[in-house]
This record gives sequence, C-alpha cells and structure tokens, in this order.
Amino acid sequence: MTSIALIEAAAARLQGHIRVTPLLHAPLLERVAGRRVLVKAECLQLTGSFKARGGWSAVSALDPLARARGVIAYSSGNHAQGVALAAARHNAPCVILMPSDAPEVKVANTRAYGAEVVLYDRATQDRDQIGAAIATDRGLTLIRPYDDAQVIAGQATVGLELARQAADAGVTAAPVFVCCGGGGLASGIALALEAHAPGLTVRTAEPQGFDDMARSLATGQRQKNATATGSICDAILTPTPGDLTFPILQRLAGPGAIVTDDQALKAMALAFTHLRIVLEPGGAVALAAALFTEGLPETVIAVATGGNVDPATFATALARVA
Amino acid sequence: MTSIALIEAAAARLQGHIRVTPLLHAPLLERVAGRRVLVKAECLQLTGSFKARGGWSAVSALDPLARARGVIAYSSGNHAQGVALAAARHNAPCVILMPSDAPEVKVANTRAYGAEVVLYDRATQDRDQIGAAIATDRGLTLIRPYDDAQVIAGQATVGLELARQAADAGVTAAPVFVCCGGGGLASGIALALEAHAPGLTVRTAEPQGFDDMARSLATGQRQKNATATGSICDAILTPTPGDLTFPILQRLAGPGAIVTDDQALKAMALAFTHLRIVLEPGGAVALAAALFTEGLPETVIAVATGGNVDPATFATALARVA
Repeated sequence: MTSIALIEAAAARLQGHIRVTPLLHAPLLERVAGRRVLVKAECLQLTGSFKARGGWSAVSALDPLARARGVIAYSSGNHAQGVALAAARHNAPCVILMPSDAPEVKVANTRAYGAEVVLYDRATQDRDQIGAAIATDRGLTLIRPYDDAQVIAGQATVGLELARQAADAGVTAAPVFVCCGGGGLASGIALALEAHAPGLTVRTAEPQGFDDMARSLATGQRQKNATATGSICDAILTPTPGDLTFPILQRLAGPGAIVTDDQALKAMALAFTHLRIVLEPGGAVALAAALFTEGLPETVIAVATGGNVDPATFATALARVA
Repeated sequence: MTSIALIEAAAARLQGHIRVTPLLHAPLLERVAGRRVLVKAECLQLTGSFKARGGWSAVSALDPLARARGVIAYSSGNHAQGVALAAARHNAPCVILMPSDAPEVKVANTRAYGAEVVLYDRATQDRDQIGAAIATDRGLTLIRPYDDAQVIAGQATVGLELARQAADAGVTAAPVFVCCGGGGLASGIALALEAHAPGLTVRTAEPQGFDDMARSLATGQRQKNATATGSICDAILTPTPGDLTFPILQRLAGPGAIVTDDQALKAMALAFTHLRIVLEPGGAVALAAALFTEGLPETVIAVATGGNVDPATFATALARVA
C-alpha cells in the first residue's frame, strides 16, 4: 500500500536526483482558455517524463543485494527510460524488454541510458514468458509501470511539489487534470494532495476510445478498452485500470475527462506557442482537458506528463498553431 | 551605471512577478556534446524570453508619476512583449512602435498583453521621429532594449539565479555562453557573476555575419555589422554593441563565439529532443556555441534566451533531428 509515509520516504530518496519541475502559466494561454491555467511541466523531467520518478523510487527502494542483481522492465517508452536511468545511476544491471518493431530511436535511447535491450517478436513470442525466464535466470527484479507501491510513491512526488507550488500561487481549490494510462501518476498525486492540499482534486484525462478509467470511475467497476491501438496518445493506451491504482482513484478522484486526438494536438500547439514546452500527445491530454472541458471553475491545473515525441508527430501538432 | 546594488534592487522588484527559470540538463544531450552541459531555460520565462525581466525592472523603477503617464518601446519582438506585460501589470499605458510589415501574430500578441501598437512604414517613415513625437505628446518614457542601466539590471537577475543554481550543481568554474544582440543580457549576467560566481565567465554567442560583439571584443573597438538582415536569428541582429554594455563585456567577458544558422537550427533540434523546450533561432545560439565550439572545458553553461518562434521555422529545425 502506498501511504503518505511511503511517499515522503520516496521524496527523500529522489531529492537531488530528480528535477523539481516548474508550475508554468502564460497570460496569453489564459486568454485562450478563459480561465487561469497552471501547468506542471513534467516533460522537463529527466528522461522527458514523470516515469523517471517512479523508476528512481522503485530502484532505490530495493534491497541492496536485489539491486546488485539487477532489474527488468517491459516497455518501449517512457517507463523504459525512467527505469534505465535509475538503474544506471544505482550501478544496477538493467534489462528492458522491447518489441522488435519499436522505433529505432527508442531502442537507441534506452541503450544510451545504459540498459541492455532484449527484443522480442510481438507476433510470435510471449513477452511475459521471455521476461520471466530472463528474470529468473539472472535474479532480476521486475519493475512494473504502475501497479507497484513504490512506483506510485515515486510518481506521487509530483503531487507533493504541486501542493507547495499551488499554495505559493495562492491556489487552494482546483481540479488537477492528470494524463492517465494505468493510473500510477494520477493515484500517486491524489494521495499526496489528500495529505497536503485537500482542496485540489485529481481528475484523470484519457483519449477518446481509451477511457477505461473514466468508465471505471463512473460505474465503480474496472472496465476495459475495446481496442489496444488507434489513438496517437500511445504513452497512455493501457487496457484497464490497475489493481492498486483504481481503488485509490475511486476514493479520491473526480469524474474522468475524455479528449479527442485533435484536442491533444491542439493542446500541444498551444503549449508550443505559449509555454515553449514540447509535449507528446499522451502528455498533452490533461492540458487539453483543462483547456477544452466545459463548465470548469476559474482556476485549473494540468500535469503535462511527457515530451518524448517524434518530429513528424510534432509537425502535425504545429499545423494546429493558430 | 549598473552596479551589483542596482541588480539586487531589481531582483527584489522582480520577485514573485518574474519566473525563476530552471537550469536543465539531459544525460543524452551530454553524450552528444561529449561534456557536461547546463542550460538555463529562459525560454520558459513569462512572454517567452528574458526580455520580461528588463521590461519589469525598467517599468518598476520609474518614478510613479512618470509610470502613470506611460512608456513607449520600439520593437517587433521580445522586448515589445516584455515591456507590454510589465506595463500592463503596473497599470501603465504602453505604446509599442512596430513596422507595419511585422508578422501579424507579433502585433496580435503585443496587443493581447495590453499595449497600444502604433504601426509605421519602414520604407517611408522615420521610427525615431514618430516615437519621439508620441513620447513628447503624451509624456511617455522610452524603454530602450539594452542600453539602459535598469534594463541591464533586470537581465542581470538571470545571472543571480545562475550563480545559485550552478553552485547547487557543484559547478564553480565554467564558460557561460549567452546569446548576444546589443549585449544587455550578457553584460548583466557578467556583472552578477562577477559578484557572486567569479569562476563563471560570460562568453557572448552570435550568428555568423553578425559578430559585431566578438569583433569588438577582439579589437577593443566597437565594430559594426556589414548588413542588417540575412540570418534566421532575427532576435539578436543588432548593428553594434551598446554604449553601456560594451565596456562591461570588455572588462568581464571571454572571447565571443560565432555559430552558423545551421548550428543554431541543430541546437533547436537537440533542445527539442533532449530538453523538451522550444527555442527560437536567436535563442539557441548560445546552446549551439556550447555544443559545437572546439576546445571547451568539461563543463559548460548556455543561456537559452527565447522561444518565440513561428511553426514554419521550428519545422525547419525539426528536420535536423537525428
């Protein structure tokens, strides 16, 4: 269970290794939105996403003997880079299992962080089976992307910072939109805010057609997405809410918000123009919700979760610049 | 004269109104550079450039009666937006004189910050004459873009922050590359570092063909550029070093660095990929110098000064992403 004590302990381990990201705003963006919009720029985090926090938290929490044997993760994206960086800085061996059709730049980047990348064929091979065999063989610890108490505690440090930064900005009550895949970040932030800024309420933000969390929150039962692909928001297309994350969000989060791919691209364009930050589509979903959801209060907060985007996708967003 | 006392006083006036911008780094960028590179992300400043600091410093330093009459500035770019925002927040009337062929978005943005934009025809009208007539008529104070002690003091607050942030990162000796037009930012930073981090040495960075400061520093005499246009680094194409800024840099700066437009675009691409920040060409020149200058020490600092760039120019940089 991720308690506030576990979160504070993670924050202490992260201190000096993980960046405190700024809470940005821009007068002209607020004119577009018609309200005050504060943006937690987690795309400026090391490795380009909040996943560096969870990776660091999990790796640093390991028993030193287990850590010396090493860690393994399944990911072709932000989680891979977060775990790889944390492992490298802890001198822990790190295996990342990636599909052989993953973009070359992602493979190269993960290797550049010092990880051993093991490729598997999505069509013919079973990822979990391969991973389990390697893990058993080498005594590696599996770092899950969200359903892990220490990973959630690491992501929750975004919420600790946000509680302080919102108070400094004079904001004590506001919805906090958080891009949501498995819900690790959203549930972590919700726990941190419950303890330190109870007037700030997490609202998950998901792409249309991949709104498993919104439907799960609405029905009180974990729902699945009908398909696994079909949105440009690749970073957050998880099939269903996590075992650990869903009960936390059920207790603490407001209704889930849903945005279209076009709104995510528009939010990327507005972040480019007015905040001068680079967002990936899945990292812009919360900002899109903060900008384009009807009936919001005067002040809203959005967590911009990641900025690992290829130039072609970013060019698509640039075409939306007004 | 801009003294350290004037700079500290400006910092006190800016506190809470101007953003403390982060000092970023990225492991993969450092692999590209082959050295440690720290980037002061001043593109994340309000209005998208450091010019908001100088504008705020100058407007807030005015005698209240003069401020109530208002201010005027000549600029189609970052200085216009910096002065306009500062004036609006001080309830001071603000006139910005812009050429009638300035990009519509710059005119619109300057108006959105609350300024009155007066357009003039570059070919047939004399800007200074028109500006002087309006200023006299309405009793407005002219805010110069760099040759003004209070503007330099405002820009110098970048240096105060940098001195603290570099010390926190354990860096006490390094060249600090600063994008240089008239030299307001570079001279201000040099003064702040002289007082608070004497091991950090400013080096100006300019576009090839517009290296008036580098040649002036080399010869000890203020030199002029042969032409006024011809680089994509539009924000920093000033004709010659400032009266106030040059003596400061002559005393405190190292040799000026010069980069090509292509290197500036490459630096924009690397900042996109590894730092997830948006830079304009003129704002990327210092990063380009930090990345591509031969024979640098193990640790270098670059001030990324601005991020107000149109999508087409940014797309040109995206094409340089490796």
